[in-house]
Amino acid sequence: MSAAHSAIGDEASTEEVMLEMGGRAKAAARRLALATPAQKNAALTAMAQAIRARTALICEANAEDVAAARQEGMSASFVDRLALDPARVAAIAAGVELVRDLADPVGAVTEAWDRPNGLRIERVRVPLGVIGVIYESRPNVTVDAAALCIKSGNAAILRGGSDSFRSSRALHQAIALGLDQAGLPTAAIGLVPTRDRAAVGCMLQGLGGNLDVIIPRGGRSLVARVHAEARVPVFAHLDGNCHVYVHGAAPLAMAKEIVLNAKMRRTSVCGAAETLLVDEACAGTHLRPLVAALLDAGCEVRGDSLTRIVDPRVRPASEEDWSTEFGEAIIAVKVVGGLGEAIAHVERYGSHHTDAIVTTDQAAADRFLAEVDSAIVLHNASTQFADGGEFGFGAEIGIATGRMHARGPVGVEQLTTFKYRVRGTGQTRP
Amino acid sequence: MSAAHSAIGDEASTEEVMLEMGGRAKAAARRLALATPAQKNAALTAMAQAIRARTALICEANAEDVAAARQEGMSASFVDRLALDPARVAAIAAGVELVRDLADPVGAVTEAWDRPNGLRIERVRVPLGVIGVIYESRPNVTVDAAALCIKSGNAAILRGGSDSFRSSRALHQAIALGLDQAGLPTAAIGLVPTRDRAAVGCMLQGLGGNLDVIIPRGGRSLVARVHAEARVPVFAHLDGNCHVYVHGAAPLAMAKEIVLNAKMRRTSVCGAAETLLVDEACAGTHLRPLVAALLDAGCEVRGDSLTRIVDPRVRPASEEDWSTEFGEAIIAVKVVGGLGEAIAHVERYGSHHTDAIVTTDQAAADRFLAEVDSAIVLHNASTQFADGGEFGFGAEIGIATGRMHARGPVGVEQLTTFKYRVRGTGQTRP
Repeated sequence: MSAAHSAIGDEASTEEVMLEMGGRAKAAARRLALATPAQKNAALTAMAQAIRARTALICEANAEDVAAARQEGMSASFVDRLALDPARVAAIAAGVELVRDLADPVGAVTEAWDRPNGLRIERVRVPLGVIGVIYESRPNVTVDAAALCIKSGNAAILRGGSDSFRSSRALHQAIALGLDQAGLPTAAIGLVPTRDRAAVGCMLQGLGGNLDVIIPRGGRSLVARVHAEARVPVFAHLDGNCHVYVHGAAPLAMAKEIVLNAKMRRTSVCGAAETLLVDEACAGTHLRPLVAALLDAGCEVRGDSLTRIVDPRVRPASEEDWSTEFGEAIIAVKVVGGLGEAIAHVERYGSHHTDAIVTTDQAAADRFLAEVDSAIVLHNASTQFADGGEFGFGAEIGIATGRMHARGPVGVEQLTTFKYRVRGTGQTRP
Repeated sequence: MSAAHSAIGDEASTEEVMLEMGGRAKAAARRLALATPAQKNAALTAMAQAIRARTALICEANAEDVAAARQEGMSASFVDRLALDPARVAAIAAGVELVRDLADPVGAVTEAWDRPNGLRIERVRVPLGVIGVIYESRPNVTVDAAALCIKSGNAAILRGGSDSFRSSRALHQAIALGLDQAGLPTAAIGLVPTRDRAAVGCMLQGLGGNLDVIIPRGGRSLVARVHAEARVPVFAHLDGNCHVYVHGAAPLAMAKEIVLNAKMRRTSVCGAAETLLVDEACAGTHLRPLVAALLDAGCEVRGDSLTRIVDPRVRPASEEDWSTEFGEAIIAVKVVGGLGEAIAHVERYGSHHTDAIVTTDQAAADRFLAEVDSAIVLHNASTQFADGGEFGFGAEIGIATGRMHARGPVGVEQLTTFKYRVRGTGQTRP
């Protein structure tokens, strides 16, 4: 970076720095795209080793970030997400090796067919190009995103939260070492070298056509800004307002287990359930125990009029509650008059992320799975399975609710596109 | 449409009309997405019948368009693209039946796997939603686009050229009849009911979040505007600057046939070759006959210094010629110093559309196919095979050079996205 930097001069504006990063990343992307699986794996191995070897340096840099965050009065949960210790650094390094050991998606032939004229056509996976990742102050994202991009043959431009600036820089040094040791260009994984917020605006504009996709990882306001302003495709979900619908033919024990798990296993994940719909056909037997189980587990329940009747602890649900991703131990509960009403409710208030039906009625399940237009639809399973790891993708960079290209968990395969490879023996078109 | 229209009132602005169309299309898209293959096929059959039955009406409306275009002094080729006669109308109707007989892409399970916890995960094709098509004055696009969208379960908003307004309206009436006869909502295929150019701007803004993708079909300026202004994903190609690289190990006869076909079969299609690269290893034997064949076929040749030596009819190529899609019988010709230089030339000047290598050297071909980053790469075949029909897709709505979602020919399969369907037996996440 230094040579290019000095060419621009010390006075380079953020925009100049960012445009130059974009150009360098695009050139590096070409080399990454053609790197062999062995070369990429060597880089990931060296990255993990460099992270481990630099544990002390990384923790020192992180301690400065943590001290600054405390001084600025950031919350305890914020500081916890920011803080690293040797065990967390070791986990980050292990995560790189996990990504290394995934199947290499690049070069896979996903379809192949022969034409009557003898042409052989293959659809082959190739990397997307340059991926912009904009995230908040979780230093591990720097490494997770870098590893997934390298494995999938992409270059990346990473822009982490200002509060984790020093930690990300220390981790990025290890990433660059890994790339360099494997003979890959260090510009393949660029870390935005400034805290200036204008850098984000530059990325949203696409860095002069050099950014192929942007992945925001963070809170709703970040994702909303990226959606509103990005001039390049975005893989993201704005909301995870997930539903569990307990159908009339749902066994109570299974419904209770799934509802409790969907809501309470981890309340902050995007696949956590936010609304429980109970069919009136089973409300007489199921509503009270389901609500009681939630309340007893420490969950606040906001219910419609029928739900409030079964338990005095239930608070009234507002219209807004139906479309809210609470992200904590709160759930909205409503009794619906059948499958059609349940589907209509999910379509009206949901966020097309992940929705589940509990029933022993196969036809009802099939209709729910067909008609609910969400990235993930489940029958008799918890919405908390909305996760790349649980899908068997090994690791994910996020979950997308857009309809284009990637939908659902975004793993290494979703970070690729394809080309058509056509082999002939001299064919011309009549 | 009339009822909704009168509700808005005669004074409705273009923006109001367009937003209302978007909302109605989105609602219709939901019904199209759930329509059975039989229902969609019935609509397409009825559409084709209605087009045939209304041939006279369609030709009358078209005659008015043609008369107006002539009065405005439009070129003969423009009028030819605009004009319909009974034979062309019959061909349009037959095209609908061709699309009807394609495999239905919706509901296909493209991948399925079991997780260790017993969850069964399937990746299922579902329609994209609402597709905006912006095109110029080729009335057949109204029907072609409608048929492809219906087959793929999508709704569409069609905005044709002003000069074909009456023709498109007459064809659209037949489309609406077909939908209605099959019990599908006529709002599924909306034709923008105004010539006001502001309608295009509304579509580029996404119609209040109701448009999922825009497909521009027309000249470079239209595509460039859509790329620059669209706030929704775009399937398109701005340029088709395709290359044929004649490698050192290319048999002259095959090279000549492929080059002539790639350039001259049809010079106006996006897969037509615009630049010929000849390797210096075979330039001594191949360059002169290749250039002579092109010149003798009526093609203007613009060459580098070496090419100009072999034939006095060759004009000098300018720097701009290497990145120009001529779209007519002109080709730029350059001698390159080997495979690496050829690939570098294609990457620098090409448009990532379609590029071909001619050689008997398998290793050279493999490297070209791997390193040229285009939607379609061919070995020993003409670039004019860049076409959905030639790929076996049956019909295409265009060719995309973007990296997201659709790349290459865009057929009914590329007009779908997917969802994950997960079936369990009560699984919860630990």
